Amino acid sequence: MARPRLTEAQSPRGDMLRAATRLLRQGGLTAAGMNRIVAESGAPKGSIYHFFPDGKTQIAREALSGYGDRAIARMRERLESRKGDPAAVVRGYFELGAEAALESDYAMSCPAGAVTLDLDPESDALRDSCHAVFDGIVAALADLLTPLPPAKRRALAGAMVSAMQGAYIRARAARDPEPFREAGVLLAAAIRLPHARKGKPR
Amino acid sequence: MARPRLTEAQSPRGDMLRAATRLLRQGGLTAAGMNRIVAESGAPKGSIYHFFPDGKTQIAREALSGYGDRAIARMRERLESRKGDPAAVVRGYFELGAEAALESDYAMSCPAGAVTLDLDPESDALRDSCHAVFDGIVAALADLLTPLPPAKRRALAGAMVSAMQGAYIRARAARDPEPFREAGVLLAAAIRLPHARKGKPR
Repeated sequence: MARPRLTEAQSPRGDMLRAATRLLRQGGLTAAGMNRIVAESGAPKGSIYHFFPDGKTQIAREALSGYGDRAIARMRERLESRKGDPAAVVRGYFELGAEAALESDYAMSCPAGAVTLDLDPESDALRDSCHAVFDGIVAALADLLTPLPPAKRRALAGAMVSAMQGAYIRARAARDPEPFREAGVLLAAAIRLPHARKGKPR
Repeated sequence: MARPRLTEAQSPRGDMLRAATRLLRQGGLTAAGMNRIVAESGAPKGSIYHFFPDGKTQIAREALSGYGDRAIARMRERLESRKGDPAAVVRGYFELGAEAALESDYAMSCPAGAVTLDLDPESDALRDSCHAVFDGIVAALADLLTPLPPAKRRALAGAMVSAMQGAYIRARAARDPEPFREAGVLLAAAIRLPHARKGKPR
């Protein structure tokens, strides 16, 4: 009888990706060295180059893209029901950030942010991966910001993603979730502007 | 005759601090190793522990605090004349960010942001230094945001600093200054809100 095929969730490959993501979220590229990924994943030493023949760049790329997909899925799951009320979507988005920061006791943030701030000429291949994470989140957020007109949605979504990255930083430095709340209140208030007058009355 | 005393600007100590700041801005804590600081500063090897007996933590602390002071001075110099017109202060603040990002061809950002995302239990002593940089900038910005009421000034300044940190990240990932412009436009627009009605007519 054939052994059941391991899904990514149970495989050593999946364990390595999860360890890489955790380390990237904690300390960016330099925290996610190959030896440390292997050690933290509990996978057999040497297997990492079997699963990721292109080494650190490959594992970081896959970890970033997987993180982006999961962040978008989580956002949609939590914010879809607020669609039509952009101020509520804005506040909800920053609540998600505060939860994620508290969950790790301020030890982790977005891996794309941490990696971007580590980019140097040797790691420049990862720039596109980081950009793709941000772009994907901006697009998914913009979708949720109806009934604002498309250009306003995109601009607001972009500012929200910037403010979120910065809130992760300031909250981590202060060990305080206030920057998330602050950004949520301010950007939600910015919606009650001329361009939002066509939206539902608030 | 006594030799003239070297000022920090001309001293090997100053060279090391400048090299450390540059490296922290490029890649955070891990980019700013002691050997690399010495190499980039051109200072004699071995002299770094003479000037910074507490090693990397000491040099990073001093580099962060010096950077914060200079950032505040630069902000005041450029934005003081806009005092009384908070929307112009907001836009000017993000223009400064875009200039700094372009100046280094997107290779550098705020060292406090990069260090915060590298913090781990071993480097936790630097958390306060990062927090102090952000706090100092928030307070200086809040001062510039008259005639908004003090609580609003502080909240807006906090959101501005978060959005700036995130704009540095997104601009670096995209090699595009748009996130600065986007944040400036959106946060400036947020000022035309009930709490700003007492300000000058726009």
